[in-house]
Amino acid sequence: MNRVTLIFLLGFMFFTNGCYAMEKVDLIIYGRYVVTMTADHEKTDKESIIENGAVAVKNGVIIAVGTAATIDASYNADQKISGKNKILMPGLINGHAHSAMTLFRGIADDLPLMDWLTGYIFPLEGQFVSPEFVKTGVELACLEMIKGGTTTFVDMYFYPEVSAKVIQKCGMRAIIGSASIDFPSPGFKGWDDSFGAAVDFVQKWKGKDSRIIPAFAPHAPYTVSAQHLSDAASMAKKLDVPVTIHVAEDRSETATIKEQYGTTPVRHVEKQGLLNVTSIFAHMVQPDDEEINILAKAKIGIIHNPTSNLKTAAGIAPLPKMLKAGVVLGLGTDGAASNNDLNMWEEIRLAALLHKGNNHDATAIPAYAALNMATASGAQAIGLKGKIGEIKVGQRADLIQLDFDRPHLTPLYNVISHLVYAANADDVVATIVDGKVLYKDGKFLTLDEEKIKEDANKIAQAMVKALAKEGK
Amino acid sequence: MNRVTLIFLLGFMFFTNGCYAMEKVDLIIYGRYVVTMTADHEKTDKESIIENGAVAVKNGVIIAVGTAATIDASYNADQKISGKNKILMPGLINGHAHSAMTLFRGIADDLPLMDWLTGYIFPLEGQFVSPEFVKTGVELACLEMIKGGTTTFVDMYFYPEVSAKVIQKCGMRAIIGSASIDFPSPGFKGWDDSFGAAVDFVQKWKGKDSRIIPAFAPHAPYTVSAQHLSDAASMAKKLDVPVTIHVAEDRSETATIKEQYGTTPVRHVEKQGLLNVTSIFAHMVQPDDEEINILAKAKIGIIHNPTSNLKTAAGIAPLPKMLKAGVVLGLGTDGAASNNDLNMWEEIRLAALLHKGNNHDATAIPAYAALNMATASGAQAIGLKGKIGEIKVGQRADLIQLDFDRPHLTPLYNVISHLVYAANADDVVATIVDGKVLYKDGKFLTLDEEKIKEDANKIAQAMVKALAKEGK
Repeated sequence: MNRVTLIFLLGFMFFTNGCYAMEKVDLIIYGRYVVTMTADHEKTDKESIIENGAVAVKNGVIIAVGTAATIDASYNADQKISGKNKILMPGLINGHAHSAMTLFRGIADDLPLMDWLTGYIFPLEGQFVSPEFVKTGVELACLEMIKGGTTTFVDMYFYPEVSAKVIQKCGMRAIIGSASIDFPSPGFKGWDDSFGAAVDFVQKWKGKDSRIIPAFAPHAPYTVSAQHLSDAASMAKKLDVPVTIHVAEDRSETATIKEQYGTTPVRHVEKQGLLNVTSIFAHMVQPDDEEINILAKAKIGIIHNPTSNLKTAAGIAPLPKMLKAGVVLGLGTDGAASNNDLNMWEEIRLAALLHKGNNHDATAIPAYAALNMATASGAQAIGLKGKIGEIKVGQRADLIQLDFDRPHLTPLYNVISHLVYAANADDVVATIVDGKVLYKDGKFLTLDEEKIKEDANKIAQAMVKALAKEGK
Repeated sequence: MNRVTLIFLLGFMFFTNGCYAMEKVDLIIYGRYVVTMTADHEKTDKESIIENGAVAVKNGVIIAVGTAATIDASYNADQKISGKNKILMPGLINGHAHSAMTLFRGIADDLPLMDWLTGYIFPLEGQFVSPEFVKTGVELACLEMIKGGTTTFVDMYFYPEVSAKVIQKCGMRAIIGSASIDFPSPGFKGWDDSFGAAVDFVQKWKGKDSRIIPAFAPHAPYTVSAQHLSDAASMAKKLDVPVTIHVAEDRSETATIKEQYGTTPVRHVEKQGLLNVTSIFAHMVQPDDEEINILAKAKIGIIHNPTSNLKTAAGIAPLPKMLKAGVVLGLGTDGAASNNDLNMWEEIRLAALLHKGNNHDATAIPAYAALNMATASGAQAIGLKGKIGEIKVGQRADLIQLDFDRPHLTPLYNVISHLVYAANADDVVATIVDGKVLYKDGKFLTLDEEKIKEDANKIAQAMVKALAKEGK
């Protein structure tokens, strides 16, 4: 080979490499519409939509986002998911759940809160909640959430270690709060032993699996003393993990805190240090205007639970005021005992609808703002801004596809409007977490649907027998 | 053959006939749970549920209801539909729709009512609503309703003749209101010609097809003069057909009626004679306590439209007060432009949830009462009590089956609770009207889904172009 040939060959190789070499990725997923959720919700919806778009995923991360043509020009993958008649968007984030409570779905409804809790839920939990119960309950919850397009959830329940193992196996992402309360709970006599176990759980699971974030979960200001709330805040700060807690849920809580501490729930938890850590406050039906400003300033994540708040008669949260004040907002289903499902589409729709009617203002919560609470803003509310919730280079590949070639989604003028006002859980046809496909075209790839439903039905039958004995 | 043999043979024939002859019917449909909706809603839910039940159908009528064992012992049919893991119940009744408006689904949202109407809906209707538009729009609506388990609806729109033909062909049941209004509308200059056409339509279709009931549909008290309302009431009485109308929908209507007539909407329409005919009043967000009693006494059907009332910011109707006063209540979706779907499960759930939170009373609208509004009570509200809405011998066989072997419906403790708080349109697996199967296991038997979606998308594309020209 002479010098000229060598130079020519090297030049040719460089040229072809630069122009034609395709980067090999793990997955390319397409969408007729790719809803990135990267626009500011004050701006037009269209900024966050790519028509005929695609996303390239490698090692669980989004490494490129663009039109299908540009992605196809630069990337190749063995696994490609077609985008024909599909909307591709970030997976939904359920900011507040008690996932194992799927096993109590519909066991008691339409009762005043205290009759429901003391007559049914607490006794049933005392009698039946065990590691096996939690395993099956969480598996059932994961089935439902994955099928409906939820990729991340914030949980608060007992036996968090069991939940963590289920979630690790099924491939979802979760913040798992180890519930602690000042009175006896499944497995524990009271605060001391349950909080001790929570510390162990957090220490064991912190950093163990990137999809699982352990957290403290003191139940609520009216069931956990001021000192214990303060202890939980300090420990969360020390161990650098979030706290998830119910705050300002209903009027009786506000009355109790007023009576016990002479203040309101938000001001009370502020005094215990809960605004100085990554806190996730669920419900927040009762804040006054000043409290709303406190929450906005502290950038505390507030999880709105519209279905649960209506069903338990807690009331209607001042969501438009919170949105306007700049509060970081997410959405949640709460447990299936007070919902009675884990369908985030219903929460998105209700968040968009409820406050229009309640405030006589058709612009109160725009569609994009409601969807944002279940995606980008929801991620921020649970302390994961920049990691999930948007389709953006560098974020984890938590993605879902919806099929819009369906009567109730025809015609399609506005993708965001459809996602908020007309789409539902059954329109989801693919669910992906960390770049791994967990569900596609009706099939679960990490969970055994039939076995889980069977296990759930067995536990339910035992509970029905127990209730029958008590004459319920 | 001797006499003894003859007597023996005749006796044997009589005996076998009496004991073993099975009556041949057209269809036997089974349910693991058959929800008959025949119980008074004040009583326990369980009264209206038959476990392992079945329904025998002949000539479009329910001729027997009972356990599968008793039905199988007496009836045979070529067509049998298995009830494994199924809930069998009456088809849902959508008491207020503008079905052709599916073609405006999501074209404009989150706008104040008047901007939405005058900036989008009215101009679009003026420009695009034609017989072809109505044909495709109603077909699309029927697809969506049949798929989601709605078997009867009350419609109010233009070109009712076109709607009637679509409904006749697709097999649904409907009360079709021919819309009349005091200003120009598609095809008409004003009240006189549109009301004249309505009279023609009613006369032509009355008694023509048992599934189609023509009706008058003066738009609302604020868009139709007192004299014209009175004319519509008189003509409805004379021709013995129902009237469907929007009444007391929002605060601006109440203010307008107060200013124009010095009274409230309900008292105003009462004066025009609308309480002396089979009237179906949609929305009813604004009645005062005395008006509620007037409506209860007159047994006027009131259609609650919770999604639409929230979305347009009309507000929250006093449903618990109306229920308590004995008002005859139904549920409706309104048009897809203000919903944005025709999913009655969402209306049932919202009717059960909304008023609990709004009234701080977890018992405000019990689950059974909400389901009743979409079935038995809904039938009464539209003047069809005893004909549809219940699974009862003698009623028309309008039936639906839901599959409960799904994660979000597992476990199942309480069938009514699941139907109200957890079920959704996609759980419907069979829809039957007048004994005829219209939809089963994802397949439409009377409509061409692909063709209809294609037609709808074509019309939508033309509208998008027109809007783009206007810079919208």
